[in-house]
Amino acid sequence: MPRRVMDLGSKVTISVASHLRIAKYRSDSMKIPALPNILEPLTSLINSGLKSSYHQLENLGTRLAATMEQIAMDDSDLVTLEQVKAAHNYLKTRSDMVRTPTLMHVQSLFAEHLPSSASGEGIDLFMKMENMQTTGSFKIRGVLNQMCKILKRYGSDAKLVTMSAGNYGKAFAHCVGKRATKSVCYMPVTAPKDRVATIEEMGVEVRQVKTEELQPCVDRLVAEEGFVYCHSFDDINLIAGHGSSALELLEDVPDPDVVLVCCGGGGLVSGVAATLSLMGRRNCRVYAVEPEGAPSMKKSFKIRQPVKLHSVSTVATGLAPPYAGSLTYKHCHWYVEDVILVTDAEILEALKILYNRGIRAEPSGCAAMAGLLTGKVPDVAGKKVVVYVTGGNVSCSEMKKFVGEEDV
Amino acid sequence: MPRRVMDLGSKVTISVASHLRIAKYRSDSMKIPALPNILEPLTSLINSGLKSSYHQLENLGTRLAATMEQIAMDDSDLVTLEQVKAAHNYLKTRSDMVRTPTLMHVQSLFAEHLPSSASGEGIDLFMKMENMQTTGSFKIRGVLNQMCKILKRYGSDAKLVTMSAGNYGKAFAHCVGKRATKSVCYMPVTAPKDRVATIEEMGVEVRQVKTEELQPCVDRLVAEEGFVYCHSFDDINLIAGHGSSALELLEDVPDPDVVLVCCGGGGLVSGVAATLSLMGRRNCRVYAVEPEGAPSMKKSFKIRQPVKLHSVSTVATGLAPPYAGSLTYKHCHWYVEDVILVTDAEILEALKILYNRGIRAEPSGCAAMAGLLTGKVPDVAGKKVVVYVTGGNVSCSEMKKFVGEEDV
Repeated sequence: MPRRVMDLGSKVTISVASHLRIAKYRSDSMKIPALPNILEPLTSLINSGLKSSYHQLENLGTRLAATMEQIAMDDSDLVTLEQVKAAHNYLKTRSDMVRTPTLMHVQSLFAEHLPSSASGEGIDLFMKMENMQTTGSFKIRGVLNQMCKILKRYGSDAKLVTMSAGNYGKAFAHCVGKRATKSVCYMPVTAPKDRVATIEEMGVEVRQVKTEELQPCVDRLVAEEGFVYCHSFDDINLIAGHGSSALELLEDVPDPDVVLVCCGGGGLVSGVAATLSLMGRRNCRVYAVEPEGAPSMKKSFKIRQPVKLHSVSTVATGLAPPYAGSLTYKHCHWYVEDVILVTDAEILEALKILYNRGIRAEPSGCAAMAGLLTGKVPDVAGKKVVVYVTGGNVSCSEMKKFVGEEDV
Repeated sequence: MPRRVMDLGSKVTISVASHLRIAKYRSDSMKIPALPNILEPLTSLINSGLKSSYHQLENLGTRLAATMEQIAMDDSDLVTLEQVKAAHNYLKTRSDMVRTPTLMHVQSLFAEHLPSSASGEGIDLFMKMENMQTTGSFKIRGVLNQMCKILKRYGSDAKLVTMSAGNYGKAFAHCVGKRATKSVCYMPVTAPKDRVATIEEMGVEVRQVKTEELQPCVDRLVAEEGFVYCHSFDDINLIAGHGSSALELLEDVPDPDVVLVCCGGGGLVSGVAATLSLMGRRNCRVYAVEPEGAPSMKKSFKIRQPVKLHSVSTVATGLAPPYAGSLTYKHCHWYVEDVILVTDAEILEALKILYNRGIRAEPSGCAAMAGLLTGKVPDVAGKKVVVYVTGGNVSCSEMKKFVGEEDV
């Protein structure tokens, strides 16, 4: 056995000792998501006299390091259960926000597409239908809560600015478009025309600029004209609002084993994963599913800090911010089991499968389903699996293209 | 008070006496749907000394006559609970049939569109999603059961023929298209091209003829070439198969007050209404909802026998057979509370509302929802109301036209 493996092996053993000590202390109040997954392979490695490959040990080292960092991390800016419950109570007073339904035990609808397990055990499948939410996506949950706080803080006539490729902008316009004060939404020049039109019709001024100009334009408006910037995902009140969907979910499915959430900026998966853990579902594994063409959260997990991407390219335009949020990264790092990547082809295949079952979902809304259907989610056999369908804002013309319908 | 009113009044009193006697005997085994609705206004009429209008009394007389007829009706060819349960058990062995989900308590999704009640009491809304069934409509439930019986009786290589505007044809092709023996589906020349193509691709020979030629063509094939005719709605095994959806519904909603079902030939509403009553839900009111442009069941109710229509014209092409079936009429007459008519505009409005909530439904699948949204269903305040969404076979191009999406 080469010397370097033994070295790494002893480092691993040392780490685990301190890890165990701290984890024991912390795990009463917070979830340590990766712990059982790390300890089990480690134990078998040690039992086998560390007769293993360098690659395996390196993997283990990386995961231990992440866990250690998590334990040392300042958790004072993570969302609290009180914040989520307060948001949920506020949202229940709003007639525009709806309680979205959960499709219960719908594995038979997708039987021929679900991955088969070696044990032959099936999946008990649930789907949280956020595409049925007002404005066609989950976004309004967070935005209503965010706006409530912002307008309380800056006054009801505050001038607001944001940037969005679509769904956040639509929810933003729904919440503030009818106010007398001007609100501005910067959108990339590549945004679909019908979404630009929708947001403008809802009363928000849309300004289209190049992707790299989005943030500078927003910053200028804030600095020079006194606008308040509303972040489309990296905002604790957004995360708390999104968490409300997990409280609803637990009413329908009290003990989910695995929850799959589409991830762009990571606001929804942050809120959902935090809420499930804070509600005591510490054994529930939450996975963020991200497009391969915009893997900001995956890369952030890898280098263990939020990254900026040079470029993004995916059919799931709602999941393609060019960077991970620092707050959402922290929530995901703390509460999310892992990030799973899916290709555009896999997303569109999931979209077609949902469409054939009567469900209108946009590509960004299908990523979690794609993650499940491609078999990329570990250990789902015999488990209660929840898939979030997060958005349905797709025009008929786009849908026609996506499902490959021919003119007849 | 004019003499004729008094005359009719005394007739009513006589009828009610015999009605009550017979009803008492029959109601142990069967539902007398109209009874409480008739007795209550009658009692108040009698109490007020029959001081009422001719019109009111005439209405009452018509309904009493219908109830009396129903009591006298031969019920030997109505579907039995055993037939429905046997069909349900058979269908559960078929991996292609799925258990469709019920959307639970989804009134908030349609709050702004639901009729408001004087009492301010809301509706507890449930939706049985038959648009999520294999082949995109409920039809496969009945057709699988029907084919099972036909092939048992006529041999597995029987030559089969049917006629259909779409959904039955698709379910028929799903069930028999892969057999070696030829099956034929006559379709009207007006059928959408993509449906013709779909059915042909599934292995069934499509022959397009004028609407008035459909039945003669089928008859010729049966008489001259030994084909077996598979009826698309007037068949007891179809009705039994469709009834399986009501057994599923009761697992999700054990005590519905009102159930709304789209009605074309009336196969589904027959199966659902019969099953609910036979399962002991005698106070549950089932309404058939039919397009104004093809009111075969409504007219049949009026003249109290199944009618033929000279012409039909509706956007809900799946609900437009030119006549009511004799079996389905009998089931509806016995078990269905009333037939409600909706216009094409009302159907398309319901379609848009569902579509905006992420649900892909075809016009024919939206009639029941239209019935509810237009406020045409009596006494729904505070009640558990189930709406059947029966089909989702609508192409993107059609949907674009229906929802009025513009090219941008």
